[in-house]
Amino acid sequence: MKRTNVSNNVIRRLPRYLRKLDDLASKGEERISSDKLGRQMGLTPSQIRQDFSCFGEFGQQGYGYNIDFLRREIGQILGTYRGYSAILVGAGNLGTALVQNFDFIIEGYAFLGAFDIKPEVIGTQIDGFPIYDVKELRSFVREHKVDIAILTVPRHVAQELTDTLAEAGIRAIWNFTNTELDVGDSGILVENIHFSDSLLVLTYHLAQLDDREKHDA
Amino acid sequence: MKRTNVSNNVIRRLPRYLRKLDDLASKGEERISSDKLGRQMGLTPSQIRQDFSCFGEFGQQGYGYNIDFLRREIGQILGTYRGYSAILVGAGNLGTALVQNFDFIIEGYAFLGAFDIKPEVIGTQIDGFPIYDVKELRSFVREHKVDIAILTVPRHVAQELTDTLAEAGIRAIWNFTNTELDVGDSGILVENIHFSDSLLVLTYHLAQLDDREKHDA
Repeated sequence: MKRTNVSNNVIRRLPRYLRKLDDLASKGEERISSDKLGRQMGLTPSQIRQDFSCFGEFGQQGYGYNIDFLRREIGQILGTYRGYSAILVGAGNLGTALVQNFDFIIEGYAFLGAFDIKPEVIGTQIDGFPIYDVKELRSFVREHKVDIAILTVPRHVAQELTDTLAEAGIRAIWNFTNTELDVGDSGILVENIHFSDSLLVLTYHLAQLDDREKHDA
Repeated sequence: MKRTNVSNNVIRRLPRYLRKLDDLASKGEERISSDKLGRQMGLTPSQIRQDFSCFGEFGQQGYGYNIDFLRREIGQILGTYRGYSAILVGAGNLGTALVQNFDFIIEGYAFLGAFDIKPEVIGTQIDGFPIYDVKELRSFVREHKVDIAILTVPRHVAQELTDTLAEAGIRAIWNFTNTELDVGDSGILVENIHFSDSLLVLTYHLAQLDDREKHDA
């Protein structure tokens, strides 16, 4: 499988393809042409062929793509079948919502549990997973060689916990704290979720509609 | 202000610029060159100049950009100062986390309250904002001409509530339900948050590191 020199834009489109293909599969579709897939996703057919060509050839000329095959291939490329282990750091509202709404195990991750500082939640469960004392975070990550930490703690403790995770050898942080984490030269991968970006895009389009209406009036 | 034919890629970069500029301002910086801004954001200086040129000229040759001016201009373009009204539909863990972690009023929105179906939360508050009975949703949206609904309900009721919001004349939906909403020809703007996309990108990079290590070993 070719993996080298794939642009970030292509990588960021892969999960979108996967969602679309899951959707098509759940509707009982078996094949789709790049034309049709493009129309449904707002991409040109040549863009789609180009994206997929980064990883080898998935389609046959004039015959379209086999949806199940494509799903499995994209899943392979994204690494969803590798069983990476994940923990939640911060069992507040956001963290709880994430664990309740994402079935990490079905998606191919091994979710091992959550960590929090509040005595009243330590020892309880989220969706059947244990909540441990954050004091045990370092030794747990070391012992279980945890791959991914989902960081949903308040902003002012985000860096401190990042340092703890780094010392313990975490490999990746999925960062919901809306603050930039300093991971030094540890090589830890960080993926930030910025909710507000998406709200601002929505607001931009509202403002544009308003300006157009004003202009047309 | 020019607004026409701005590409989606440029629009999606504007919130990133805003975050970066806020960050620079909070560190006491007053000016920045497109070179330096580009390096810090992983963009080329010409990309940055091109992005900003979509909306007119913000910088002076050889003198860089005034950070405060640029922040205000981008805020204007994004419509953050227009005081759009917003409500939360679904006062569960995710909705509560959003209201607690986002200061809608400071960000320029008028947050009016939340709606839920659970008797035990109706009449209580989130962060000082009232939680109303979802039965009142339609009349409330009509009466207050609400602009934006933040949809954080379970998947299986997402479409039903979208229909209610559409009938009541909502203008935009910020959709956290991880399901595609059908808004027909209502013209309602929808912006979807897909948490899993970001986790998959992280997983891709982990898998790539693993393959590289295996290859080098």
